[in-house]
Amino acid sequence: MNYKMIGNILGWLLIFESLFLAVPAITAIIYRESAFWSFFGTACFCLLLGLLITRKKPGNKALYSREGFIIVSLSWIVLSLFGSVPYMLCGAIPNFTDALFESVSGFSTTGSTILSDVEIMPRSVLMWRSFTHWVGGMGVLVFIMAFLPLSGGQNMHIMKAESPGPSVGKLVPHVRTTALLLYTIYFILTLAEFIALIIGGMDAFEALNTAFATAGTGGLGVKNTSIGGYSPAIQIIVTVFMILFAINFNTYFFIARAKFREAFTTEVIVFLIIVILSSATIAININGIYNNMGESVRHSTFTVAAIMSTTGFSTVDFNLWPELSRALIVMLMFVGGCAGSTCGGIKISRFIILFKGMKKELEVLIHPKQVKKIKIDGHPIEHDVVRSVNVYMVGFVLVFAVSMLIISFDDLDLITNFTAVASAMNNVGPGLDLAGPTSNFSIFSDPVKIVLIFDMLAGRLELFPILLLFSPATWKK
Amino acid sequence: MNYKMIGNILGWLLIFESLFLAVPAITAIIYRESAFWSFFGTACFCLLLGLLITRKKPGNKALYSREGFIIVSLSWIVLSLFGSVPYMLCGAIPNFTDALFESVSGFSTTGSTILSDVEIMPRSVLMWRSFTHWVGGMGVLVFIMAFLPLSGGQNMHIMKAESPGPSVGKLVPHVRTTALLLYTIYFILTLAEFIALIIGGMDAFEALNTAFATAGTGGLGVKNTSIGGYSPAIQIIVTVFMILFAINFNTYFFIARAKFREAFTTEVIVFLIIVILSSATIAININGIYNNMGESVRHSTFTVAAIMSTTGFSTVDFNLWPELSRALIVMLMFVGGCAGSTCGGIKISRFIILFKGMKKELEVLIHPKQVKKIKIDGHPIEHDVVRSVNVYMVGFVLVFAVSMLIISFDDLDLITNFTAVASAMNNVGPGLDLAGPTSNFSIFSDPVKIVLIFDMLAGRLELFPILLLFSPATWKK
Repeated sequence: MNYKMIGNILGWLLIFESLFLAVPAITAIIYRESAFWSFFGTACFCLLLGLLITRKKPGNKALYSREGFIIVSLSWIVLSLFGSVPYMLCGAIPNFTDALFESVSGFSTTGSTILSDVEIMPRSVLMWRSFTHWVGGMGVLVFIMAFLPLSGGQNMHIMKAESPGPSVGKLVPHVRTTALLLYTIYFILTLAEFIALIIGGMDAFEALNTAFATAGTGGLGVKNTSIGGYSPAIQIIVTVFMILFAINFNTYFFIARAKFREAFTTEVIVFLIIVILSSATIAININGIYNNMGESVRHSTFTVAAIMSTTGFSTVDFNLWPELSRALIVMLMFVGGCAGSTCGGIKISRFIILFKGMKKELEVLIHPKQVKKIKIDGHPIEHDVVRSVNVYMVGFVLVFAVSMLIISFDDLDLITNFTAVASAMNNVGPGLDLAGPTSNFSIFSDPVKIVLIFDMLAGRLELFPILLLFSPATWKK
Repeated sequence: MNYKMIGNILGWLLIFESLFLAVPAITAIIYRESAFWSFFGTACFCLLLGLLITRKKPGNKALYSREGFIIVSLSWIVLSLFGSVPYMLCGAIPNFTDALFESVSGFSTTGSTILSDVEIMPRSVLMWRSFTHWVGGMGVLVFIMAFLPLSGGQNMHIMKAESPGPSVGKLVPHVRTTALLLYTIYFILTLAEFIALIIGGMDAFEALNTAFATAGTGGLGVKNTSIGGYSPAIQIIVTVFMILFAINFNTYFFIARAKFREAFTTEVIVFLIIVILSSATIAININGIYNNMGESVRHSTFTVAAIMSTTGFSTVDFNLWPELSRALIVMLMFVGGCAGSTCGGIKISRFIILFKGMKKELEVLIHPKQVKKIKIDGHPIEHDVVRSVNVYMVGFVLVFAVSMLIISFDDLDLITNFTAVASAMNNVGPGLDLAGPTSNFSIFSDPVKIVLIFDMLAGRLELFPILLLFSPATWKK
């Protein structure tokens, strides 16, 4: 294990975190909030610590797969820990577990909160919550890798470990250029939403926060009613962007190059079909509740987009919907969006691989001599990708089951517990019943919050880095 | 597809079913019940139809894997269909869907009922319900195979498709001898329970029914309070036998030959550890509810044994227990017992394979050049077994999700729906809330009952035969 190199990258991470902290600090200056000193102080501390650590360059820069996973998991833990400090310093969230929960919920783009009233919070605190979504959405390490003078293809390990989805494709031969392209798409889409929201009538502060939270598919908002208090126009704009951010970013790269066949992959098409079918089903199911079908469609589409993109915004309390809609919402939490987006969830591509794998294996059962690989969009899927998807599912179920058991000690009802874990592991935000969109996570005890913190991180990093961090085999010589 | 051979075996199945129907018919004679004519009539019809079909011997006796799966799924459907006829004829369950539900619940050893009061039922009807458990527990086709003059190793396909667990081991070189050995163990254990229950103070009729239902890990009882109304001694006897029937029958074969190392495989040990740990956890969790710790331990152990063996008997209404116990019970439904027993559920051995597979794959992630097979009890597990377990899990989740969605149309609560599907697919019997141990499945609409019927059969046959029945690839030339 190359500890020096791991330390070095964590140092760089702290330097970048100090830059991120400048955003809420500037917000505090604009709105003349005393929280400025908390953000400024934390930023200075991160910068100093980062500079101190990175001063000594490691001789051996080699990074292997093992270091890649460890760097990713440690980075996200460090990022969240330091990100929680200003919440405590400024008094917004005095309790450490709560502050860490809010910080992890932000960076992991979950969007669950322990705050019962966000509207009384300083604007700089709200900005930090939203901004952590934006940073967490695309992942911070790939960003750092794009700037750091690291040698060659070794950072591919880190990109693989941090990026969502079962397999990472390079758009262009160089990892660094690929990363920069993806960040550019991310930036342009965020800007587009910001402008659309301004045109829709939102004020600049709220528009920026909402754009950050949508882009990262996070969901921490600046209003207690999430997006419910805004005009239908704003709700529709947010719906569209939630869907856009749930689609593989490669799609936009290919659209920009007018390569439409490459742009609309099976995954993207399946995703859009599920969005349409689910929205339609729910719209019919909830039709009696709202004034007209138009309203039902607006709320159903918003909710489906919010859940599948794992943003977790809400316009209405879907917890009160009929059971068919509720069951569908819980299932869509697990589905998530496309790989290569900022979404959480298990992701469409994994389900396609699992489904095609099952179909193939069933055929092998009846025609035992048949040997063929499964294909998606004409590309054969390698066995190790199929295996890693299977392992991912097993790990998911295992972490889910253990989490459920620990959470049950609080003696809240099964639906609350189940959907809270589902929401945390899939980085959605709200669940159902006591964890529903009008509630908040302060109802849980501190040990349960720690389990949920673990689940949010494990979900965002797609399990492997976090599981490997706790695996003895990783630390063996 | 060798249709003639499939028809021939289905014919033999009907002949055997007419013999099975003799058991409730004789019961009706003993207790002078008019239901006799329903059982007798159905038996005669099955016998005639069976003789008619089997009269013409098929020229080509070849059975391949494909035919094996189709025979298994069709046999169980035919068995259940004809098994439901006497319920309707005697007027006990006039509605066809309800009668089929009760019949499938019996043969699949689920033990869910649509009857709200079983104590007013004729004894012959109760006997048929229990006896279907006993027939379904070990599987009827393997039994027929053991008698039918089929050539060589071809019936291995059928044994593989009908027997529970990821891989079928032969105890002795011949399939037929292996089957006869297993049925002998089954018979002796059932007899042992019958005698124990008589000694414990049960009357002969109830003891026989209870022994049949325990042996098949079914759970349809002769009392409205299941085992709750019996003495602690009886409850303990049933607990012990539920555990015994949840253990791989190979264990008893090896114990009889004093090969204790082969007898106590990893799976059996893991099963027993889970039983002990879960019982202890629940006993502590429910301690306040009962008079003393002894009573808590009795009820917790009984419930854990009932759920893990997927028998589904109950002594108390565990639906009212604290959330930790309820969550644990739901999880144990999915775990089930050992492969090679009469249990439903996903089974311990599958979880061991999944867990070891995950551990291996995580190690491969950090040491990419490592190539090794996973081993259980020193035996390497072949890749196709690992793959089939993965496919099983995917199929399970898929069937589960679709079932949940359809069931939600009834607009009952999520916990009822979730646990009803879990209970049906794992062949447990009761679920939680409206599907709890004191309720019955008559609350569901007919379409939902049909979904649950499908789930019970799919669960009993471990998915593949039922999935293949509906797969176009099976029917291709």
